[in-house]
Amino acid sequence: RTDVPDAVESVELGDFEHYMLKEIYEQPRALAATLGAEGEKRIEDARFGEGAGAIFDRVQSVQIVACGTSYHAGLVARYWLEELAGIPCEVEVASEFRYRKRAPHPGTLLVTVSQSGETADTLAALRGQMADEFVASLVIANVDHSSLVRESDLVFLTRAGAEVGVASTKAFTTQLVAFLMLTAVLGRRHALGEAAERELLNALHRLPDMVQETLSRDADIKKLSEQFILKQHALFLGRGIQYPIALEGALKLKEISYIHAEAYPAGELKHGPLALVDAEMPVVAVAPGDELLEKLKSNLEEVRSRGGELYVFADRNAGFTDEPRVHVLQMPSCPEVLKPAIYTVALQLLAYHVAVQKGTDVDKPRNLAKSVTVE
Amino acid sequence: RTDVPDAVESVELGDFEHYMLKEIYEQPRALAATLGAEGEKRIEDARFGEGAGAIFDRVQSVQIVACGTSYHAGLVARYWLEELAGIPCEVEVASEFRYRKRAPHPGTLLVTVSQSGETADTLAALRGQMADEFVASLVIANVDHSSLVRESDLVFLTRAGAEVGVASTKAFTTQLVAFLMLTAVLGRRHALGEAAERELLNALHRLPDMVQETLSRDADIKKLSEQFILKQHALFLGRGIQYPIALEGALKLKEISYIHAEAYPAGELKHGPLALVDAEMPVVAVAPGDELLEKLKSNLEEVRSRGGELYVFADRNAGFTDEPRVHVLQMPSCPEVLKPAIYTVALQLLAYHVAVQKGTDVDKPRNLAKSVTVE
Repeated sequence: RTDVPDAVESVELGDFEHYMLKEIYEQPRALAATLGAEGEKRIEDARFGEGAGAIFDRVQSVQIVACGTSYHAGLVARYWLEELAGIPCEVEVASEFRYRKRAPHPGTLLVTVSQSGETADTLAALRGQMADEFVASLVIANVDHSSLVRESDLVFLTRAGAEVGVASTKAFTTQLVAFLMLTAVLGRRHALGEAAERELLNALHRLPDMVQETLSRDADIKKLSEQFILKQHALFLGRGIQYPIALEGALKLKEISYIHAEAYPAGELKHGPLALVDAEMPVVAVAPGDELLEKLKSNLEEVRSRGGELYVFADRNAGFTDEPRVHVLQMPSCPEVLKPAIYTVALQLLAYHVAVQKGTDVDKPRNLAKSVTVE
Repeated sequence: RTDVPDAVESVELGDFEHYMLKEIYEQPRALAATLGAEGEKRIEDARFGEGAGAIFDRVQSVQIVACGTSYHAGLVARYWLEELAGIPCEVEVASEFRYRKRAPHPGTLLVTVSQSGETADTLAALRGQMADEFVASLVIANVDHSSLVRESDLVFLTRAGAEVGVASTKAFTTQLVAFLMLTAVLGRRHALGEAAERELLNALHRLPDMVQETLSRDADIKKLSEQFILKQHALFLGRGIQYPIALEGALKLKEISYIHAEAYPAGELKHGPLALVDAEMPVVAVAPGDELLEKLKSNLEEVRSRGGELYVFADRNAGFTDEPRVHVLQMPSCPEVLKPAIYTVALQLLAYHVAVQKGTDVDKPRNLAKSVTVE
C-alpha cells in the first residue's frame, strides 16, 4: 500500500488543555492526510492494497463489522454504499456477528473497522469467518502492523496519527473518508457514474476546509453546552445517514460527560421515547430537513408543559431560527456527503465542553479503555 | 386464509387492575390461538394466504420492516431465519427504510409487522417499494381488514384479540409465533431439515405452557421490581437473540414507568455505556450464558465502588445464584426457540410492576398513542 506519512506525528499536548480537544482540532490535517495527494483525480484501487482491483471486481455486497465508534462509521458507510454505489450493505456489532450462525449473501466483502487494529471482538470476527463466507477481507485501521492489518487481505490505513483521548474523534472522521473512497472504487463498478464519482471526489477535497469552518463554531457550541451541564439525560435524533451521527454524538456525551444520552431514529420518537421527554431530557436533532423538523416540533409540542427543549444542528442555509423551546446551531452549508463528518465534529465539541464544565477526566473517562483488547 | 377465531374476545377488564396486566396474562391463550390446531403436525403454506407456497419457493432472502415493538419482533426473527432457516434476513425501522435509496438483494420477501395493521410509516414502506424490489409482500398483523392486510400479497393474522394497553404485550409474543411459523415454511425450502422442523413444532406447542409457568414467577418479579422504583436509569444487556429482548424490555420500562432504560448488546458495554453505570443505573442481563455472565460480572467489578448492581434473568438450570451485587431471577427451563418469548413476558411483568408502584397511567402512558397512524 502507498506509504503516506501521517499528518500528525506529535503526541505532545501543546497549547491544548486535553488530548481530546487537540485531536478534534487536528481533524482538518488528519482528513487531508488520509485523503492523500493521489486522491486528487481518481481513487486508485491500489490504495486498498495489492490485488485490490481484482477483488473489487468480484464484490456484490458488503458486510461491515466493528465495535463502538467504528461501528457508527460503518453505519454511515451503509448509506453511501447503498445510495451512491448501489451495493447492498449490512453492518453489525462485532460481538454480535461473531457469536451467531450467519446466512451470508454470495460475493460479499468483509470490511472490519478498528482504530487500533487490535479490537478483540473485531479481530475474532475476522478470524471466525466460515470457509467461503466472504470474497475477501478489508480492514480500515489507523495503526499499521496491527493484528487486523496483518491478517486482512486488503488494508486501508487512515492517517489520523496517534489518538490518545479514549473518546475517538479524528479516527472516526478519517474512517468516513476511507469509506467514501471505498464507495468510489466499488461504486464505479456498480451504480456510480463518472460524473457522480467526480462530484464525490470534488466534495471530498473540500472536507478539510469544511471541518475547519465547523471548528470556527466552537464558541457557539461551548455556549450551547452550558444547557447540558446539569442534565442527567439527553435524546439525540437523526434520520437516514444522520441517525448514525446521532448515535455517535450520544456516545461521545455518554463516554466523557456521564450524561445518559441515547440516540433514536427520529421517526421512532412516538413509538416510546417521547414518554420520557421533560426538562431533564433535552432533545438534540441532527440536521433535520424542513418536513422532519416540523414533525419534531409538533411531537415536542406535546411535552411543552413538561419543559421539553429542542436543540437543532442545521445547515445555516436551511433558514431555521430560534423560537421558544427551539434552539438552532447554524452549521456550515456543505455537500451532502460531507454532512456526517462535519456534524460529528460539532457534536464532539458539544460533548467535550459539557465534560470539561462538569469536571470529568475527559481523556480517560472512568472504566473505559482506549483499545478494547479483551472480549 | 384460515378463519380461526381469536381466543380472547372480551375487552372487559374483569378482575385485573389494568388492561396491560390482563393482556400479559392472556398470552398463553393468545399464543395457542395464533398457533392454531392446524399447526399441530405441520405448518401449511396456506396459513400465510392463497398462493403462499409458490411465492415461498422463490424467496432467497427476507427484509423485515416495522416500528417500535413490532420492530423488535423482526429483530428476533432475523436470528431464526438466518440460524434455523439459513436465509439471509435484514430488519429495518420503517421510518428509516422508507426514506432511503436502497440496494436490495434479488429474491427478497418484504415482511411488514404491525399490531394494528395501520402503522403509518410501515404502510408507507409497503406502498413505497420500487418496481421489482421484492418477490412479494407479507404482513404479520393482529387486526383483520386493516390497511396493511388489504394491501399485502400474503397475510398472517395473529390471534391475540383486541389489545387495549398502549404498551404492546400479547401482540409481540404472538408475532414471535408468526415468525417461528414463517421460519418453518421458509426453512424447509432451505436449511431446516425434517427433524429440525419437527423439533421446532414440538417446541412451539409447549410455548403456551412455558409462558404460563413464567407467569407463575409474578410474585418474585414484583418483589424484584421494588429495586427499580426509585431509579432514573436502567441498562438492559443481551447477546444474540436475547439482545432484541433486552431492547423490548427497555422499551416497556421506558414507555410506562418513564425510567430511562436503554438496551445494549452485552459486548458493547465496554465501548461506552460502562462509564455511566452507578447505583442509579441498575444493569439487567437477559439470559446470559456462563461465559457472558462471567464477563459481565468482571465488567461490573469495575463499578462496584459506584454501587453498580446486576439483575440476571436466567434459566433456573443454569445454576446461577445470588451473590453480593448480583441478583438472579430464576426462569423456567425451556427449548432455545421459546426463550425470547418467555423472557419477554418476565420483562413485561417487571415494567408493569415498576409502573404501578410509581403510580403512572399504565394503560395510557403520556404522549403515546396505541397505533401511530401519523408519520
